[in-house]
Amino acid sequence: MKIKSLTFVIAIMVNGILCFSQNNQPAVIEDFKPSSLNQPGQEYPQVNSQGYVRFKIIAPTADSVRVSLGLGGRGGTKLKQAADTSWMGTTEGPMDEGFHYYNIRIDGGKFNDPGAKNYYGSVRWESGIEIPAHDQDFYALKNVPHGNVVQVLFPSPSTGTSRRAFVYTPPGYDSKSKQRYPVLYLQHGWGEDETAWSNQGHANLIMDNLIAENKITPFIIVMTYGMTNEVRMGGMRNFKIEPFQTVLIDELIPYIDANFRTIAKQSQRAMGGLSMGGMETHTITLNKPEVFSYYALLSGGTYTPAEIKDKSNIKLIFLSCGSKERPDGVKNAAAALKDAGINAVSYVSENTAHEFLTWRRSLLELAPLLFKN
Amino acid sequence: MKIKSLTFVIAIMVNGILCFSQNNQPAVIEDFKPSSLNQPGQEYPQVNSQGYVRFKIIAPTADSVRVSLGLGGRGGTKLKQAADTSWMGTTEGPMDEGFHYYNIRIDGGKFNDPGAKNYYGSVRWESGIEIPAHDQDFYALKNVPHGNVVQVLFPSPSTGTSRRAFVYTPPGYDSKSKQRYPVLYLQHGWGEDETAWSNQGHANLIMDNLIAENKITPFIIVMTYGMTNEVRMGGMRNFKIEPFQTVLIDELIPYIDANFRTIAKQSQRAMGGLSMGGMETHTITLNKPEVFSYYALLSGGTYTPAEIKDKSNIKLIFLSCGSKERPDGVKNAAAALKDAGINAVSYVSENTAHEFLTWRRSLLELAPLLFKN
Repeated sequence: MKIKSLTFVIAIMVNGILCFSQNNQPAVIEDFKPSSLNQPGQEYPQVNSQGYVRFKIIAPTADSVRVSLGLGGRGGTKLKQAADTSWMGTTEGPMDEGFHYYNIRIDGGKFNDPGAKNYYGSVRWESGIEIPAHDQDFYALKNVPHGNVVQVLFPSPSTGTSRRAFVYTPPGYDSKSKQRYPVLYLQHGWGEDETAWSNQGHANLIMDNLIAENKITPFIIVMTYGMTNEVRMGGMRNFKIEPFQTVLIDELIPYIDANFRTIAKQSQRAMGGLSMGGMETHTITLNKPEVFSYYALLSGGTYTPAEIKDKSNIKLIFLSCGSKERPDGVKNAAAALKDAGINAVSYVSENTAHEFLTWRRSLLELAPLLFKN
Repeated sequence: MKIKSLTFVIAIMVNGILCFSQNNQPAVIEDFKPSSLNQPGQEYPQVNSQGYVRFKIIAPTADSVRVSLGLGGRGGTKLKQAADTSWMGTTEGPMDEGFHYYNIRIDGGKFNDPGAKNYYGSVRWESGIEIPAHDQDFYALKNVPHGNVVQVLFPSPSTGTSRRAFVYTPPGYDSKSKQRYPVLYLQHGWGEDETAWSNQGHANLIMDNLIAENKITPFIIVMTYGMTNEVRMGGMRNFKIEPFQTVLIDELIPYIDANFRTIAKQSQRAMGGLSMGGMETHTITLNKPEVFSYYALLSGGTYTPAEIKDKSNIKLIFLSCGSKERPDGVKNAAAALKDAGINAVSYVSENTAHEFLTWRRSLLELAPLLFKN
C-alpha cells in the first residue's frame, strides 16, 4: 500500500495532474500526520490532507484486524500484516470532515484503538478520530478568554441518586458576580452521555470563540444524561419520556436556578438536542410550553404547526441536519412553521452526515439566534 | 475454572470451613458482581467479596489473552478459552482493596478491557477496576451537598498554550458569594494527568463527605497536569522542574487567585502530590517557600531538616505511604522533622501499596490538618 501510494505521488509530481486509483478514488497523498485526538505520544492513527485515515495496530499473532471506520460499508477497513508484524491499513477513500467514532475488531472481538482517545457513543467508550474540517477554526482552542465547564452533582429524589451535569459558564462569569445569564439545556444523542457536547462537541470552545467575537448574547449551557441508553435498536416504543422529563424539569432546572446566576424564566430558557436528544426536546418542549421559549432539534426531527398549541409562547424553532441526511425534511418543516406565523429557522450543514460536525455547526448557527430580546 | 470454583463452594457449604486450593489461596467464593467501574450494561470484569477478579473477553479466534492484573508477577492472569469461545479467568488470589489500573494482552498487543471504564495512567488510558475497600464509605457518593469540579483553561505564555486545570469548589461556593477559601494545589503521579485526582482519586467526594461531617475547614483544590509524561523509566535525570514550576507559580496560581474567591496568601496555600507529584511538591515548596505553608508528599519522598531554610514559614509537613511501600521511611523522616521543631505528621495506609487507595486515605488524613489557623 505504501509503495503503491508513493507511485501515485510521483505520478502527480511528474504529470501535474490528479491520478485516480482503480476504484476511482483520488491518489493517496503521503502527508499523513497523527490525529489530533491521539493519546499522548501516539503516532497512529494518522490522517492526511485529503481525509484518508491510516491505522496501525500492534497484535503480532492475531489472525485478523479490521477497523469499523471506512468506506467498505459495514465492513470498514481491513488491515494487513506488515513485515514487522504490525497491522496496517488505510481507508479506501477520504472520510467526511469532522469527528467519527470507531472501534477495532481483533480476532472477532471489539476493542478500542490504543492510539486514540476514547469518547462515549453507542453505549460504550469508542475510539475517536478527527478529520480536520476546512472550517475547524470556529471550534479551535484559541488564545481568547475561556469559560469553564463545571461538573455538578445534583440531587434527584425521583431516581434516588445524585446525578451528574456539566455546566458551561461564559468567560468572566466568576468575576462579574452580579450578572445573570439565560440558559440553554442541551442534550446528547442515543448511546452518548453528558460528556458528549463538551468532549466531542467542543461546545465550550464554540461559545468562547463566539463570545470573543461579540457575536452572541453570552449564556449558560447545561448538559446532562438523557437516560437514552435504555433504548436499544427497535426499542424506541419502550422509551418513556417521563423519567427524564421529571429529572430535567423538577430537579435539574431548579438546582441550576438555585446555584448559578441564571435568569430563571421561560423567556430566557432554551432546550435543544441532537438526534434522540432532539426527540426528547420535541416531546418535553411540547409537554412543558411554560418552561422553554427557544426549541432546537439537531438531526432530531421536526415540529408541525398543528403540534404548537400557543405560538405566542415560542420565540424560535431551530431545525438542522447534515446535507447527507434529509435536508428537505428540515427545510420544509421550517417553511411550514413560518407560514403558520412561527419564527422558524432551518440550517443544513454541507457535506456532513449524522455526525458531530453537523452538530458543532448547528450550535454555531443556533447560538447567535438565542436570547436576542 | 468455573466447575473447580463451584466444587469449592460446595465444599465450604458441606464442611462449614474455609478450604484452600493447592496454591494456598483461600477457596474462591462464587459471589462475583460486576465491578463498580464497568461501562454501562457490562457484566465483566467482576469482583467477589474476597477481592478476586474474574475477567471475560470476547475474541473468538485469538491465540492468547492475558490480563496484566493478578498475582502472577509481571505475567498477570492468563485467560482460558471457554466452550462458548469467550476467554475467561480469575486472579490467582485476592487483589488489594482499592483502585487498580490494568490492560489486556491479546495476541501480543496491548488493549483495554471493553467492559471497564478507562483511567489515565502509565501515559495511556488504562482499564480500571475497583476492589471494594472495608472503609470505602469515606469516598462514596452520598446524599450530602456536593461541591463542583470546574474545568478551567488558563493562559500559559511560557508554554504558548491554553492549559487545563480542574478546580474543586466546596458545596455552597456559588451561593456564599462573599466567602473566600484557602487552596490546596494537588498533583498526580507519573504517567497520570489532571483528571486523576477527581476520577480515580474521588478527591471531590472525599471533600464533600468531610465537609458534611464538619470535620474540615472547607478549601478549594486545584489539579493540573504536572508535565510528567516526558519522564520515561530511567529518565528522571532529564526531568527539569523549571517548566512546570513556571506554569504553576507564575501562571496558574495568579489565574486561580483572579478567578476564584481564594485567600491569596502563603499562610492559606498548600501544595501536595502523589508519587512523582510528591517529588515535584518537594522541589517547588523548597524553591518557593514564600508561596506555600503546608507541604504534603504522598508516596512521594520525604524532607530532611537540613533542607528547611526557615521553619517559621512552614505550618505542616505531611508524609504518607502505603504499608506495602516503605513506611519506616516516612515515619523516621517525620520524627526527625519534629525533633527539629517542625510540625510534621506521618501516615501509613494499612495493607495498600503504591496505588490510589493509599492516596485517597492520605487525603482523608491530610484535609483536617490543613488551614486550621
